[in-house]
Amino acid sequence: MSDENRKVFFNGKFIPEYDAKVSIYDSSLMFGDMVFEMTRSFNKEHFKLKEHIDRLFTGLKILRIKIDMTKKEMFDACIKTSEINAHLFDDTDEHRLMIDVSRGLLSIYQNIETLHKGPNIIIADFPLKWTVAGMGQLFDEGINAVITQQRVIPADLMDPKIKNRSRLFYLMANIQASEMVGKNNWALMLDTDGFVAEGTGTNFFIIKDGKIISPEGRNILRGVSRQYIIDQLCPKLKIPIIEKNIEPYDVYNADEAFMSGTPFCVLPVTKINNLNIGDGKVGPIYSELLESWSKETKVDIKKQIKFWNKNFGNRVEISPYKFK
Amino acid sequence: MSDENRKVFFNGKFIPEYDAKVSIYDSSLMFGDMVFEMTRSFNKEHFKLKEHIDRLFTGLKILRIKIDMTKKEMFDACIKTSEINAHLFDDTDEHRLMIDVSRGLLSIYQNIETLHKGPNIIIADFPLKWTVAGMGQLFDEGINAVITQQRVIPADLMDPKIKNRSRLFYLMANIQASEMVGKNNWALMLDTDGFVAEGTGTNFFIIKDGKIISPEGRNILRGVSRQYIIDQLCPKLKIPIIEKNIEPYDVYNADEAFMSGTPFCVLPVTKINNLNIGDGKVGPIYSELLESWSKETKVDIKKQIKFWNKNFGNRVEISPYKFK
Amino acid sequence: MSDENRKVFFNGKFIPEYDAKVSIYDSSLMFGDMVFEMTRSFNKEHFKLKEHIDRLFTGLKILRIKIDMTKKEMFDACIKTSEINAHLFDDTDEHRLMIDVSRGLLSIYQNIETLHKGPNIIIADFPLKWTVAGMGQLFDEGINAVITQQRVIPADLMDPKIKNRSRLFYLMANIQASEMVGKNNWALMLDTDGFVAEGTGTNFFIIKDGKIISPEGRNILRGVSRQYIIDQLCPKLKIPIIEKNIEPYDVYNADEAFMSGTPFCVLPVTKINNLNIGDGKVGPIYSELLESWSKETKVDIKKQIKFWNKNFGNRVEISPYKFK
Amino acid sequence: MSDENRKVFFNGKFIPEYDAKVSIYDSSLMFGDMVFEMTRSFNKEHFKLKEHIDRLFTGLKILRIKIDMTKKEMFDACIKTSEINAHLFDDTDEHRLMIDVSRGLLSIYQNIETLHKGPNIIIADFPLKWTVAGMGQLFDEGINAVITQQRVIPADLMDPKIKNRSRLFYLMANIQASEMVGKNNWALMLDTDGFVAEGTGTNFFIIKDGKIISPEGRNILRGVSRQYIIDQLCPKLKIPIIEKNIEPYDVYNADEAFMSGTPFCVLPVTKINNLNIGDGKVGPIYSELLESWSKETKVDIKKQIKFWNKNFGNRVEISPYKFK
Amino acid sequence: MSDENRKVFFNGKFIPEYDAKVSIYDSSLMFGDMVFEMTRSFNKEHFKLKEHIDRLFTGLKILRIKIDMTKKEMFDACIKTSEINAHLFDDTDEHRLMIDVSRGLLSIYQNIETLHKGPNIIIADFPLKWTVAGMGQLFDEGINAVITQQRVIPADLMDPKIKNRSRLFYLMANIQASEMVGKNNWALMLDTDGFVAEGTGTNFFIIKDGKIISPEGRNILRGVSRQYIIDQLCPKLKIPIIEKNIEPYDVYNADEAFMSGTPFCVLPVTKINNLNIGDGKVGPIYSELLESWSKETKVDIKKQIKFWNKNFGNRVEISPYKFK
Amino acid sequence: MSDENRKVFFNGKFIPEYDAKVSIYDSSLMFGDMVFEMTRSFNKEHFKLKEHIDRLFTGLKILRIKIDMTKKEMFDACIKTSEINAHLFDDTDEHRLMIDVSRGLLSIYQNIETLHKGPNIIIADFPLKWTVAGMGQLFDEGINAVITQQRVIPADLMDPKIKNRSRLFYLMANIQASEMVGKNNWALMLDTDGFVAEGTGTNFFIIKDGKIISPEGRNILRGVSRQYIIDQLCPKLKIPIIEKNIEPYDVYNADEAFMSGTPFCVLPVTKINNLNIGDGKVGPIYSELLESWSKETKVDIKKQIKFWNKNFGNRVEISPYKFK
Repeated sequence: MSDENRKVFFNGKFIPEYDAKVSIYDSSLMFGDMVFEMTRSFNKEHFKLKEHIDRLFTGLKILRIKIDMTKKEMFDACIKTSEINAHLFDDTDEHRLMIDVSRGLLSIYQNIETLHKGPNIIIADFPLKWTVAGMGQLFDEGINAVITQQRVIPADLMDPKIKNRSRLFYLMANIQASEMVGKNNWALMLDTDGFVAEGTGTNFFIIKDGKIISPEGRNILRGVSRQYIIDQLCPKLKIPIIEKNIEPYDVYNADEAFMSGTPFCVLPVTKINNLNIGDGKVGPIYSELLESWSKETKVDIKKQIKFWNKNFGNRVEISPYKFK
Repeated sequence: MSDENRKVFFNGKFIPEYDAKVSIYDSSLMFGDMVFEMTRSFNKEHFKLKEHIDRLFTGLKILRIKIDMTKKEMFDACIKTSEINAHLFDDTDEHRLMIDVSRGLLSIYQNIETLHKGPNIIIADFPLKWTVAGMGQLFDEGINAVITQQRVIPADLMDPKIKNRSRLFYLMANIQASEMVGKNNWALMLDTDGFVAEGTGTNFFIIKDGKIISPEGRNILRGVSRQYIIDQLCPKLKIPIIEKNIEPYDVYNADEAFMSGTPFCVLPVTKINNLNIGDGKVGPIYSELLESWSKETKVDIKKQIKFWNKNFGNRVEISPYKFK
Repeated sequence: MSDENRKVFFNGKFIPEYDAKVSIYDSSLMFGDMVFEMTRSFNKEHFKLKEHIDRLFTGLKILRIKIDMTKKEMFDACIKTSEINAHLFDDTDEHRLMIDVSRGLLSIYQNIETLHKGPNIIIADFPLKWTVAGMGQLFDEGINAVITQQRVIPADLMDPKIKNRSRLFYLMANIQASEMVGKNNWALMLDTDGFVAEGTGTNFFIIKDGKIISPEGRNILRGVSRQYIIDQLCPKLKIPIIEKNIEPYDVYNADEAFMSGTPFCVLPVTKINNLNIGDGKVGPIYSELLESWSKETKVDIKKQIKFWNKNFGNRVEISPYKFK
Repeated sequence: MSDENRKVFFNGKFIPEYDAKVSIYDSSLMFGDMVFEMTRSFNKEHFKLKEHIDRLFTGLKILRIKIDMTKKEMFDACIKTSEINAHLFDDTDEHRLMIDVSRGLLSIYQNIETLHKGPNIIIADFPLKWTVAGMGQLFDEGINAVITQQRVIPADLMDPKIKNRSRLFYLMANIQASEMVGKNNWALMLDTDGFVAEGTGTNFFIIKDGKIISPEGRNILRGVSRQYIIDQLCPKLKIPIIEKNIEPYDVYNADEAFMSGTPFCVLPVTKINNLNIGDGKVGPIYSELLESWSKETKVDIKKQIKFWNKNFGNRVEISPYKFK
Repeated sequence: MSDENRKVFFNGKFIPEYDAKVSIYDSSLMFGDMVFEMTRSFNKEHFKLKEHIDRLFTGLKILRIKIDMTKKEMFDACIKTSEINAHLFDDTDEHRLMIDVSRGLLSIYQNIETLHKGPNIIIADFPLKWTVAGMGQLFDEGINAVITQQRVIPADLMDPKIKNRSRLFYLMANIQASEMVGKNNWALMLDTDGFVAEGTGTNFFIIKDGKIISPEGRNILRGVSRQYIIDQLCPKLKIPIIEKNIEPYDVYNADEAFMSGTPFCVLPVTKINNLNIGDGKVGPIYSELLESWSKETKVDIKKQIKFWNKNFGNRVEISPYKFK
Repeated sequence: MSDENRKVFFNGKFIPEYDAKVSIYDSSLMFGDMVFEMTRSFNKEHFKLKEHIDRLFTGLKILRIKIDMTKKEMFDACIKTSEINAHLFDDTDEHRLMIDVSRGLLSIYQNIETLHKGPNIIIADFPLKWTVAGMGQLFDEGINAVITQQRVIPADLMDPKIKNRSRLFYLMANIQASEMVGKNNWALMLDTDGFVAEGTGTNFFIIKDGKIISPEGRNILRGVSRQYIIDQLCPKLKIPIIEKNIEPYDVYNADEAFMSGTPFCVLPVTKINNLNIGDGKVGPIYSELLESWSKETKVDIKKQIKFWNKNFGNRVEISPYKFK
């Protein structure tokens, strides 16, 4: 696969990926003023694309970014983008789409003739393995969730349910996680009430006495994967699942824990601040979820990522969620 | 002046402004992960450039963005950028430099061969009048500061003293200000303790019984203009100035009020939520500050902006701080 | 109908409405120290009068205001008051009772011989149309709920569940709502946690995926109408209803929304901060509730208010909940 | 003195005190929507009347209550009210003016022909001894300040600097103070940050190492007496005075403490939660302040109140600030 | 029974109770760094000992106190301790075990040769009547729950779910409760959100409309008795029980209320701040719970405590939870 | 020196150190209910002993622990304790006194005949080198202050100005500091407002532009060493010092920083979260303070500790403030 050939949907045109750039005068580079989505495929089939686009449009609505595309057109543009790039993907690859919408040039720069006017609508398509190739061992060893000093910004100040780019605090959490002892560290942030909110880029779940518990959808991104688990997987498996405030104490006391995220679906969390959750091993209910998800999507999720890890791990050394 | 000829310093090279773009895979477009400064000149002389660069480097330090430039080299690059573009500026123009530093490509994208590796260091140089041409009448009528429902994010969650791009809440405040009745509205945000913090992009001051009071440097950007007023202008004019928590009540009760910001120096605030501050006129101590500043910099600030407003107002219809 | 003939129950006597006044030395005029209820009739039948009186007595208990009337006597006095005034009401009128209980004269004024000693117990009875005549169009156009900068006072500082007169912040919210752009604005206040609390004088509900959700009964008045919807209407209609913290995001994302209040029962909310809720039209589940309520009470609620609006709208120009 | 003869200024007319009443439909009785001042005289000379009226007008401005009187006219009406009642005051009496301004009838009641339209402006004038006759022993024994569970409402939710009637929480604090063991209890409220705010109806001060410290003017009424102490008395006596956040610990640790309030000027606080402040005796710096104030106003404040206490104490059994 | 003969398990040995002491250099005496449990027997049978030990080990885990005993060994040591002391207990006595685990000597004192190294593990066994003998009348009269100014420390600052000795605020609450008027006072603390948390040493419940409600397990100790009521007693009795935030208003409005605690199981709460809950009498659902508990454990709980109260009340004058 | 010979003042008697123990039924072991002080000598002269005892008595007063000793008697007992042990101290040793006062047996245990009744008053005297021997290198390398996830408990919930033993959160902070990367880590805690509070067991200071700044005395212990620096050392050296809220940003931006504490006086802080403060070297103003302190007390503080470090460092491996 050759980097220079990938094409990006950019305001209605397809341009080379290396040209997919945003002007320094764009609102997204001024204020983090961009709504986005990142999706994945299973066997090249796009997963929950409609749900991602619905969420995108809710964000655009609240931020008063007006675009000239319907949800349907956005959906079609996504499909088309992946079709155009399909020949560049290995058989074993999966698509990872990144949909970006920014408000466009700040008004004072709108008279620069050479620059695009109006919102920027961007759809990139790259191999999912870039994101997950370094995560293979986590399926066996589990994540060490480390509670960072950095807390999430309360929703009434900047709502994380609008998936936006104004989230430098994520990076601070990752920096802090990287400065704590331990292996397989992943930042787990509390909200300002002291409740567990989310991992950087992931939703969090604990399992206690056969029930799955996930934080209320307040100071978190309401993840598409999280919703899939709540609305589809758990009912199917007859595993009770509830949304409820949880605290670090509940994590210390849990039988199992895991994180969900679009690229890897679910990853086990076996430690909290270097202390075992349950017996510190990957647990049965987590495994059941992963298996069921794999079955539903006809992709052995763990095997696929481990395959990439083995074959392409050298390309990507560091998880995208970790601070280098 | 021709837009297409302006050059931007971009990682050591000078490229056309219309090419000054950042990859969609850059950390700044992922997390608002960019530290920046915006400066201005007086009579083409750069003002407080050193102070801006000092603040930039403090932000880089705390965010652990490591660059291969010293402060001195940054200073020189700024100077050089404005020299290269100087011939494109009218006699009546002033330089406005925008210095941007982002962390660079997220790690998972670092193997894309066609993309720049490492932090992005960008210095753009454009005419100040773009920013301020719409502000002429504010010197006479004064701003109507409107307290928005949006509050600033507390410093212990995301420190505004690090001048960064992760500030979508600024846009929300501007949207709200634009949805309130009144003329010359400018968003004034409180912090979560209910204290007055800052205008969007400006520092705020009130004057009571001959004393100038500005909010403590906690939940605000500690502006270079603000510091100039505190450390130099006021002592010179023998006007007492203190940093102290202030509340809306204090603004309602003030004799005068004003905002400071690099592009316009100081603008009078004559109303708060549509109610007069003092007698609702531009006040004497504000005027003294403006005059003194003009004298120090040998530029009649008000006259200059009104000149631009008259001659170039059509180019820029809307203040950069207002939501369209 | 002649204003001068209406009678008000005042400490056991019936006096002309224009004489129904409270001494400037009364605790209610010193501290907002008054508990009250406002009720309505349907076809001249008092609705939920017992529930209103129960709530009144709970407030009196907590505020340690001791009166020499039982709940039964209060109920009877209400009935008697409406009977005495009944002949002054048109056939198309409905009763609106206002029950006020204040602690009485502050102790230092209790020796003024000419003034009443002990608590003041007042029951006034006036036509409901005064309150609602201006609301006719809201049934068709819906309310534009505007989130005000003013938030509700947390219950642990002054409990809104005690229906009292110490609520100047309501007026501030109304002032703010009137200073925002938009039509049919109605203040919607958040609590200090950022959750939606209540409209000024109303309870708030959203509808999502067929379920009705109303904020938890914490920082709100637990309205009698709200309770009627939860306990009686919804179960009857088999519409699931839950009490749960909701956020502005949930309102932006809702399918429908409405407010409840004694005088108008339920009013549709079709916009939030000028953005459409759902498709911005009055929704089906709201309509079902209204219709059912009308059926239960044998009054076409919407038609009745529109009738008043048409015939008496000139009498009252402004909603009681709006700031003039 | 005969109660029935006192006259009250009521919207431009002088009416008997027993007729000085407010309609049950007035905004003040609906929302606590009334701004007020209470003043006193020394030797029948009004004290700081201008300052009281200034504060009244600031409150009216912020609450958007528009009246057709200038500050001058209000001042004159106050003087005239006390002149009209002067013959009813004993030689040993002092005037206590109560100025009330309410927004007037809620709009829905404005068509009741028999009721006054527009704001209500009321000035009552009664003997100061009513208020203070029960306080004589406090000058010798000192107050036992009891920190109540009730805290003040933060200024950003309802600003206490606007002297208004929406303050039921004051009564709750008094109820709580009356339910605590101890003698001479007076409620001392903290703010929600845990700082000492104010007594119910009074400002609070501690003295430590020769310095007087009073809480910052945030979550308190900025009392006229407090300001007189800060701006005039202390500078005159060369006692350093600062405004600073103080905590219960600082009170426990203080050498002396006192409260200020218009009717009694300053009262010593000798205990905090039944524990001695300093040696539990009335302290020297407090005494110096009281003496100086007496000298400035040519009234022996303590002697005057003790005189009333002895001769009229039976009239008023209970402090106005205490719950019966 | 002779005090000098009781034996205490102390780091593996049995020593006389009067020798059961902890070095002044122990971490428990430096930082309140001790996890503990207190249990009781019914008819000399240990109740829920396993649950107590489970909670103890969770606390040890989170505090990183490492001991060389398994849960099983701890259980056995408890049994053995009570066996060794059994002959000293009257027939009518019950065992009360106190299990203490401290981290041990602070490191700087670890070289003192004469002192024990490593954690201290202590199990004492004394007659339950010591604790409860003074509580007999509470079963008939009920507790007067008084809401203290002292609030509980939020769980994210110091988690009460770890049963530890660092809880001086408990004593402050008891001091405050003892300084409030009323009989049978027991401190009831709110959390910093204003929700009811717990009594000092007890969990709290209200009953409304046949349902039992207990605060969410956040800012409280999740009591073993509380869990027994939730998981076993209520399901058995088919009484609905839910965990939910409750406020003082809900307590004022409740039909019944009670507290649970290991030594006395459940005690009725008939008043809140001296006001009746319901009719101020011990209620039927409480009585049903007590009776059922007695039946399950084959001990008439109320009768047993009243017996002790009558016969041994003189030994212990004051409840352990009250400040002398 | 022989451990077994040291004597501890224990309720009026001198007993062997290894017998200085507290009953498991003591309030200190139940609630962390103990007030304490730890002092040091310079050349065997007790330093600021009076100030320590003053603070001790303030704590006892607020906690309502009543003892039968005056401050003078406490002072004398301290002196006597050190005299009795003096012969056991090397020439190069210094005394470290630990004064502990607990409330005594909980009431329910007061009938155990074999146990001491009433408060426990304990004075221990051990070599200061135990505490500081491991700190020698910190004078050269400086501390790496790490901001922990654990924050201090706000003063209005449990006042740190009362030096008490209920402070398990200190240990949690130390545990967290030990689990972060870096060398010479020392926990620096923020308060819940995000301001820098204190190190575990130390006060914190920054130096900026020649001025020393220390956090306001709110959520911290107001250290005796801190007060000595503020009131005596700085005035003497003419270094301006102010008490002011500071934030992490201010520390990142400082020129120098240091911590103060009784055993070591002042230690340099050269890093914050592994980033240099200033140039990362021990700074000149810190050095001036240390030198001046040494001169005042006629002890070369740094040299003395380094001497102990060299000769006795093996005895104590770990700083008392660090978690093992």
